[in-house]
Amino acid sequence: MNSDTLDTLDTLDTPAAIVDISRMERNIATMQKRMDTFGVRFRPHVKTTKCLDVIRAQLRAGARGVTVSTLKEAEACFAAGIVDILYAVGIVPSKLARAMALKRLGCDLKLVVDNLAAAEAIVSYCLDEGDAFEVWIEVDTDGHRAGIEPEQDALLDVARTLHEGGMRVGGVMAHAGSSYELHTPEALRALAEQERARCVRAAERLRESGIDCPTVSVGSTPTALSAANLDGVTEVRAGVYVYFDLVMHNVGVCRLDDLALSVLTTVIGHNPEKGWVFVDAGWMAMSRDRGTSKQARDFQYGLPCAIDGTPIEGHLLIAANQEHGILTATDTKPGSMPESTTSASDETDVTTRFPLGTKLRIFPNHACATGAQFSEYHALAPSGELTVWQRLHGW
Amino acid sequence: MNSDTLDTLDTLDTPAAIVDISRMERNIATMQKRMDTFGVRFRPHVKTTKCLDVIRAQLRAGARGVTVSTLKEAEACFAAGIVDILYAVGIVPSKLARAMALKRLGCDLKLVVDNLAAAEAIVSYCLDEGDAFEVWIEVDTDGHRAGIEPEQDALLDVARTLHEGGMRVGGVMAHAGSSYELHTPEALRALAEQERARCVRAAERLRESGIDCPTVSVGSTPTALSAANLDGVTEVRAGVYVYFDLVMHNVGVCRLDDLALSVLTTVIGHNPEKGWVFVDAGWMAMSRDRGTSKQARDFQYGLPCAIDGTPIEGHLLIAANQEHGILTATDTKPGSMPESTTSASDETDVTTRFPLGTKLRIFPNHACATGAQFSEYHALAPSGELTVWQRLHGW
Repeated sequence: MNSDTLDTLDTLDTPAAIVDISRMERNIATMQKRMDTFGVRFRPHVKTTKCLDVIRAQLRAGARGVTVSTLKEAEACFAAGIVDILYAVGIVPSKLARAMALKRLGCDLKLVVDNLAAAEAIVSYCLDEGDAFEVWIEVDTDGHRAGIEPEQDALLDVARTLHEGGMRVGGVMAHAGSSYELHTPEALRALAEQERARCVRAAERLRESGIDCPTVSVGSTPTALSAANLDGVTEVRAGVYVYFDLVMHNVGVCRLDDLALSVLTTVIGHNPEKGWVFVDAGWMAMSRDRGTSKQARDFQYGLPCAIDGTPIEGHLLIAANQEHGILTATDTKPGSMPESTTSASDETDVTTRFPLGTKLRIFPNHACATGAQFSEYHALAPSGELTVWQRLHGW
Repeated sequence: MNSDTLDTLDTLDTPAAIVDISRMERNIATMQKRMDTFGVRFRPHVKTTKCLDVIRAQLRAGARGVTVSTLKEAEACFAAGIVDILYAVGIVPSKLARAMALKRLGCDLKLVVDNLAAAEAIVSYCLDEGDAFEVWIEVDTDGHRAGIEPEQDALLDVARTLHEGGMRVGGVMAHAGSSYELHTPEALRALAEQERARCVRAAERLRESGIDCPTVSVGSTPTALSAANLDGVTEVRAGVYVYFDLVMHNVGVCRLDDLALSVLTTVIGHNPEKGWVFVDAGWMAMSRDRGTSKQARDFQYGLPCAIDGTPIEGHLLIAANQEHGILTATDTKPGSMPESTTSASDETDVTTRFPLGTKLRIFPNHACATGAQFSEYHALAPSGELTVWQRLHGW
């Protein structure tokens, strides 16, 4: 029931997910320029936005192909004319038919495996179908999650199984997800180098065993922005860099004024005694993501800003129910657990400073999680004009 | 791209949100019977499911009207023929036009306020429009969130402003949300009594001042299931009772075999050294809700079950990335922080016990948050037949 045209931040129904187009374009340009300087291809991960308007902006800036986290994203990208697609979550037998349907339509879909059972399942399926997939092997470079370590026997076992089964072993890929736990340039640079070196080593082992492995793909937003050397890497992937968020701010790879996603909200009430301001951005809008909870600066459920995007110093969204958020003045000393610090003498402040109906914007902890709560973004142009950008939902 | 017909749990694409219809119907019947015995109306909160198939089942069982958390839910319910709707989040001026549009179509929409500014805004808007709303006043019975305390002057100020401005003051409503923090029958019964007594007291104060206040509405799932006395209450509201979840299990108002919502997932890989099983239910499927983290038993990101819904003892979903969940054996002593307890000697167990492609179901911490991650439920009949039930997304 939202009006899709002529709305401004002042008139738009809340809560709404606002994308600052200028900041987004700047984030895209900065990353692309960095990758161009390194001479590597850049393949954005579209799981952050699930939005074709954003993906097209990334491709216009020079991105080559996309990374997806679901087959639904792959299908939507392909339907929009994007052919080069990496499905970066380990494939399972039950998803092969859906992947093959996409390939047969002409999609250059690459699958990922990190274990022999999956490789065997692909080969077996393709034997039955009289067809083949391009498959990349996931390499574990930091013990973070999935993947085969570069020196493990399994790396060659999987590659040979695929190769001998008629699949194209198109590359190796790594994601140093532990980069999210770091917060110094030195540590990030070291992890980026580890991600690079180990992934390149995996590719070398494949090549030494006679398997081509043309692509060496690495990336996470923090390592992509911290790498000093990408020798041997052919492409980099990153997702959240397009919007950034409070987690990335704490990691140290962006400034607050790079954050391109915020949640527009309205003040719906107060508890003056407690110094609480109720807003209509609860966890249904912000998500339950508390990614900053273990970082040096805990932003609780988000950092409130004025409607123009200026952070409101000393305030946080300290709690969230489904459709209620609670904003209050807090102790913002790094590492402390914010509590309401409003005393009885401030009782009138909360209703006069944030009157009923006041519109605010909240920077989220995690742009991927917050975006997923919305079926659409409202993209904000420098002129103040808003455009609706649809998002995918579900699988 | 999911096939909507003839799928079974064995063939359905994952992740998927599964509703066990038998358990859901039993939960609905139990709550309705309890309310019928008390002689009070029951008005389910549809924010949990946002699904007309479920709402219709609640109405068939005897529910009278619905509670909504967004105007989108109100619009969808009204379009489906449901007229009696309580919008239970404090109204703000910017949402009055959308609410009035619904009322003018014939919807018996009731608004909620807990402050004078909102009451004045309603009166002012209706004066301009030459129309009126029915408004209920939110009462704070437990200091949990919003509302006016029953003895505060503001209660009568708000009521008089509405009444004299031509609005119908249709009732008072309270939500003892702090019930989620309790876990003994005695404490829950005491809070239910507090919720009842304070809300009834607010109604009495209104009536003493000459305002009719026909409805006294209370409720949360824990208090609705724990109240020993509902004297003076005319209706009860509850939402999550329809599915229950691990948080409600810890509160003590349901058993594990009452849980009607689970996430169907597939094993996509392993880290045998760490005893990790990767599944395709990450936080995008489970949500980031960690509602059990502060309860006596922390279920991390969820309790894994076999495909038939039988909990897998000693295992939890210990971590979640966007499309990856990590399941492992854990120390399940109440109150402890589960860590992987698999030793090197168990290395083979994880791949043989949970082979690639194995389907599992995961009980979520919070049914409202997990459901919101999906655009549809798959409703499971006792026969094994699955039916797609659509959910609302967004505002």
